[in-house]
Amino acid sequence: MKPSTLLKFAPFAVLTVALVGCATDPLPSWNDRPAKKSILQFVARATKPGSADFVPPAERIAVFDNDGTLWAEQPMPFQFFFVLDRVRALAPQHPEWKTQEPFASLLKGDVKAALAGSERAVAQLLMATHAGTTTEEFAGIVSDWIATAKHPQTGHLLTEMVYQPMLELLAYLRANGFRTYIVSGGGVEFMRPWAERVYGIPPEQVIGSSIKTTFELRDGKPVLVRLPEVNFIDDGPGKPVGIQMSIGRRPLAAFGNTDGDLQMLQWTAAGPGPRFCLFVHHTDAVREWAYDRQLSVGRFDKGLDEAAAKGWTVVDMKADWKRVFAFEKL
Amino acid sequence: MKPSTLLKFAPFAVLTVALVGCATDPLPSWNDRPAKKSILQFVARATKPGSADFVPPAERIAVFDNDGTLWAEQPMPFQFFFVLDRVRALAPQHPEWKTQEPFASLLKGDVKAALAGSERAVAQLLMATHAGTTTEEFAGIVSDWIATAKHPQTGHLLTEMVYQPMLELLAYLRANGFRTYIVSGGGVEFMRPWAERVYGIPPEQVIGSSIKTTFELRDGKPVLVRLPEVNFIDDGPGKPVGIQMSIGRRPLAAFGNTDGDLQMLQWTAAGPGPRFCLFVHHTDAVREWAYDRQLSVGRFDKGLDEAAAKGWTVVDMKADWKRVFAFEKL
Repeated sequence: MKPSTLLKFAPFAVLTVALVGCATDPLPSWNDRPAKKSILQFVARATKPGSADFVPPAERIAVFDNDGTLWAEQPMPFQFFFVLDRVRALAPQHPEWKTQEPFASLLKGDVKAALAGSERAVAQLLMATHAGTTTEEFAGIVSDWIATAKHPQTGHLLTEMVYQPMLELLAYLRANGFRTYIVSGGGVEFMRPWAERVYGIPPEQVIGSSIKTTFELRDGKPVLVRLPEVNFIDDGPGKPVGIQMSIGRRPLAAFGNTDGDLQMLQWTAAGPGPRFCLFVHHTDAVREWAYDRQLSVGRFDKGLDEAAAKGWTVVDMKADWKRVFAFEKL
Repeated sequence: MKPSTLLKFAPFAVLTVALVGCATDPLPSWNDRPAKKSILQFVARATKPGSADFVPPAERIAVFDNDGTLWAEQPMPFQFFFVLDRVRALAPQHPEWKTQEPFASLLKGDVKAALAGSERAVAQLLMATHAGTTTEEFAGIVSDWIATAKHPQTGHLLTEMVYQPMLELLAYLRANGFRTYIVSGGGVEFMRPWAERVYGIPPEQVIGSSIKTTFELRDGKPVLVRLPEVNFIDDGPGKPVGIQMSIGRRPLAAFGNTDGDLQMLQWTAAGPGPRFCLFVHHTDAVREWAYDRQLSVGRFDKGLDEAAAKGWTVVDMKADWKRVFAFEKL
């Protein structure tokens, strides 16, 4: 609740302390456990005027991984659903894909076989489905697709597969003067068309992997054309690099869920003054998925150990979150 | 003057219309000529609530070239003064530079000979002086250097060689809800350490050329190491690319001074709704420098023609600016 909203209720405050106390909880989907307390304590510490730990608003940067941290990533990162649908949509223009891997497997619906290939196979799929358009055309394709794309297991829109407790956390940080950024291994132009609507994060605060683009005049009209060439991989050690390139400041707080976020949290934690690092641990096989050390994509192994060693917050989804998704009945 | 400041003077407003009219001029260093009027009209148009041309604050992005647009660039872009000083400082560690071009010429003080070489020579100089440190070390080196670096001809600090009318323009746009960005061919990490103090532009709103960096743990401490490899050239057709990468929105207004800014202005102008493009034309050989079509670095030729054809604003420095630098006596 914003202070301005609170003011409207001020006359009733004395009579309804319990009610208001409840209504003003900025993180209502979080159980009252250590993870929630650590967040509230960090924000209080960094934003208390006059205290030694006070951080000016300009430096209140919070960075969030996307897949598995803000929205689900099982059975695979959702951008691969886009790849799959785009391969199907583009297949008529590419008869050679019927026999050419990794396209052939994908078109047969065997996603695992296609993705089990080398990184090069994944790169081929990404280029074939992400390059060749202008930036504006690509944004339109993504917007159209995400408007109806559903999760194959839950049947919910992918944009509903976002974690309600994390939406509350984003809003709470912003209400306390933080700027919230996405720093994701996913494609920056795949996320921008919907990140503001879904997360409240504007395009200039989305950092991600990218392919190269080139400026062209087409019939006198300037366009940026997306090329089938990797520009930047915003994952693992690439995350601090991407943060420095785009923001030029070290974050105050970092949120992730896998070893691919570890360097981002290390970079964040190494700054002076109050810092906050949090991993989301997927422990809830009923409401979401349970996975950590065993996975190849989405592995959370070194990060789990380092969080324990350094006292970073680890969210036990099953225990810490009252609900995972907004569509759940409480 | 900010509205809040104006309020303090409100009781005197009726009696001193002429005085207040003068005091509230947001662009006091601009003569009352078409260039100034075009700026005021554009801002009024884009920010008038309820009008068809109203642009929400989130989309009010203004991008500024740096060299020759916000500060001077003669006799050469100021970053080369840094290169020169760094080559001198590092020379004792590089005895081979005494005979190796382009270092040898630079060390002899023959800047023209060194820079007259190929782009590769310039790249060599940049790498030798910009790579090999951590990002934090480099920021410290730049901060120390810029604190005392003076212009060889005027004797003024380089940070005083900024255009007073452009500082007023930056402040005026920000007072009207615009976010002001630098989009420069200069090095992003060369500009960030002082851009906020000098221009009021924070690190995350500085876009520039860059070299690659890599994440390392040194004795357990994470650092970003600057590598002698070009990452991105933010010049000419690279400027719209850099804007899309970092901001993900098309600017509403763009300000430049050479053909290297032309594509940025084209990209800006091609968007729907109110757009504003402005070139600074260096016409004042007395207070600054006069140059345009004849120069190799800093050439303003195609841009001058296109501005005329498209009706973009061209600032005639000699006629349009009451003063160029803050240190001038009026």
